[in-house]
Amino acid sequence: MERLRYSEWGELAMRAEPVITRLMSDALAQPDLLSLAAGFTDNRVLPAELVKRLVSDLASQAGEPAYLQYGMNQGRPGLREAVIALLKSYPGESALPLSVEDVLISNGSQQSLYISAQLFCNPGDVVLVERPSYFVFLELLKGLGLKPVSIPVHFDGRIDIEGLESLFDEWRRSGDMDRLKMIYIMGAFANPSTRCVEEACKRKLARVLKQNSRPIPIIEDMAYRELYFEEPYPARSMLSLEEFEDYPLLYAGTFTKPFATGLKIGFVASRCKEWLRGIGRIKGHQDFGSANFNQAIIEEAWNSGDYDKHLKSVRGHYKRKMEILQETLTSSELPEVGWNWEEPQGGLLMWLRGPKSVDTKIGSPFHKACIENQVLYVPGDLCYAEDPENNTVRLSFGALPEERLPEAAQRFARSAVK
Amino acid sequence: MERLRYSEWGELAMRAEPVITRLMSDALAQPDLLSLAAGFTDNRVLPAELVKRLVSDLASQAGEPAYLQYGMNQGRPGLREAVIALLKSYPGESALPLSVEDVLISNGSQQSLYISAQLFCNPGDVVLVERPSYFVFLELLKGLGLKPVSIPVHFDGRIDIEGLESLFDEWRRSGDMDRLKMIYIMGAFANPSTRCVEEACKRKLARVLKQNSRPIPIIEDMAYRELYFEEPYPARSMLSLEEFEDYPLLYAGTFTKPFATGLKIGFVASRCKEWLRGIGRIKGHQDFGSANFNQAIIEEAWNSGDYDKHLKSVRGHYKRKMEILQETLTSSELPEVGWNWEEPQGGLLMWLRGPKSVDTKIGSPFHKACIENQVLYVPGDLCYAEDPENNTVRLSFGALPEERLPEAAQRFARSAVK
Repeated sequence: MERLRYSEWGELAMRAEPVITRLMSDALAQPDLLSLAAGFTDNRVLPAELVKRLVSDLASQAGEPAYLQYGMNQGRPGLREAVIALLKSYPGESALPLSVEDVLISNGSQQSLYISAQLFCNPGDVVLVERPSYFVFLELLKGLGLKPVSIPVHFDGRIDIEGLESLFDEWRRSGDMDRLKMIYIMGAFANPSTRCVEEACKRKLARVLKQNSRPIPIIEDMAYRELYFEEPYPARSMLSLEEFEDYPLLYAGTFTKPFATGLKIGFVASRCKEWLRGIGRIKGHQDFGSANFNQAIIEEAWNSGDYDKHLKSVRGHYKRKMEILQETLTSSELPEVGWNWEEPQGGLLMWLRGPKSVDTKIGSPFHKACIENQVLYVPGDLCYAEDPENNTVRLSFGALPEERLPEAAQRFARSAVK
Repeated sequence: MERLRYSEWGELAMRAEPVITRLMSDALAQPDLLSLAAGFTDNRVLPAELVKRLVSDLASQAGEPAYLQYGMNQGRPGLREAVIALLKSYPGESALPLSVEDVLISNGSQQSLYISAQLFCNPGDVVLVERPSYFVFLELLKGLGLKPVSIPVHFDGRIDIEGLESLFDEWRRSGDMDRLKMIYIMGAFANPSTRCVEEACKRKLARVLKQNSRPIPIIEDMAYRELYFEEPYPARSMLSLEEFEDYPLLYAGTFTKPFATGLKIGFVASRCKEWLRGIGRIKGHQDFGSANFNQAIIEEAWNSGDYDKHLKSVRGHYKRKMEILQETLTSSELPEVGWNWEEPQGGLLMWLRGPKSVDTKIGSPFHKACIENQVLYVPGDLCYAEDPENNTVRLSFGALPEERLPEAAQRFARSAVK
């Protein structure tokens, strides 16, 4: 009998190497390795007692336990209210004009990113991303046959608006502009760069986008926004900027990264009704609604104030862990031999750049030295749409217990200096 | 500025009318209507106290609460073991040769159905379905631009193997066989027909399929299999039949339909490694793993024996509800005016056929009479790939409290007889 044949989509998906699943399996399977790679959160601050109490509270509510029943495809209205309250809680955003109809709950924000790419992009189309960008998103694009292209950036990593304008001019001349179908930006404590996007830059970006006759849907991924150490990053979200008022814009966020990743509840908010309707339509085909139980737990946590309380304690925890990693790296030989990085103000990550001569790719001598020294990192080259900077590294201080961070950082430094 | 443009996939999805989400919203929004339409389970048998205890047990286990952390893309190994144990628990299937690598956990089984269609089918391709078939699956196919075509059936609804053979011959002559990319069958207590497929029929089906030079992936959806009233349906699953041994076959099931739909944990099992790898790949892009927390709860329920205990009590409950509906319908004027149906042996549904003159479609006088009498049903025409039998109706006894079932059935009968 002949071989099984995949569809075009199947072929595309099979060609996109699943780094995330491999990194996750590596981390789960080899507890002896100290992993600065996995984007996990810290098991120690997972709210086991709180979740237990919330489930108990749900069970003791009057009436039938409908929270264990199917819910709505778009998500629980009460949880969508919570999304709006969360977004309005940021400085200068209390007037954000959003209704529950403008919000949709999905299986992590990842599902909404995937569906948005399905909705707007045909195989071969181009999606603009940051440089570097979130490698799981890059993979998702490849899996759909799409081509990620970097937004031009300044030497310090900030978005180069004039460069983008020139790129658009060039693409309009060459006809390539027709291929551009979506833009993806992480607004706060980006993965992997931990960069935030300034409000002035967002405004300029809107103006450049509006010069095009065709609207190009833009996603502002704010998955790490809540995980600031001291203060929220001061830039308002694109949703609150009048420059984006009538522009197709999607805000993507998550309730469970800062709370309990195992609950997997993300959300999107948009005033572009077509976009949300489209996501809802495809989600209706994929699963007709995210787990109602998990949504009810988060809704309960939000309404009781427990969500906020938990988040506050988590922030201090990750700040401390970042400082431990920062201190160990700073006091190692890394700076002497030409490594540099910025101290992040939020998130779970650090982004390091070695000397030009270093190559951190999987299989490189550097990588082998790290494996030998039993420490894992994410090679930075995975985070680039094109022309990777092979001397970069993403380290995460999320998962490792804080007392093991110094050892992990020393192992990394040792591998780098050797 | 120009309008927002969807991709080809986006356009296709937007053209597939979302009956499921509408029916769900209707049911959730209008509690006064008695709904025999929604495929919900009964809130009264949702295991609120049990889930509370399971979560409490998880919280009190030694070590870190990793069940609240990200899990593996393929699903918890322990839960995949439970899938195997469940499948082996059926009569004559204890020798089923399956390992945890042959199982994948998804967001309900729906997600695996969607991804399988993505994996094998290009827009325009044909998928064979039963007659009638599960309308949410038909919608999913339309959303991906696929064409469902009915497997020939006998007058009593059983699959007509000789008819299928002739259809294949015809398609081979016309060249249409190349378009056939997948087959979808509900093996037990099918939605909506409540029919089961006999083992002899499955064996013959395998033989007919193997006459084709190209393997055509086949899904056996067993979502209702556990919900038998007295005894499991005696036919073994296709996975256990040697005729399907080297054939690309996917078994799809769910832990949460018989337990708590709000937890949304489905599974697939297959010895076709390519198929499972493909599903895993696309799932990695869509959400990189279903909620670990929910999986841990089900795993705990399975290992403690509570899952089985709960299922046993649920079976009796639904049997009683079916009997109430059956009795009310039988003692109504429906049989006199030409309606007929079979008493189901499991599941949550009844499938009724009115006289030829009746049209039950949305917007028909019959439909309007039902809305006027405040009762909802699923019009049968939605369940056909082509040439719908417009005189059919799907009724569900899942969601309504048992004391309201007689009134709902009477309202339905009144509308039918008027």
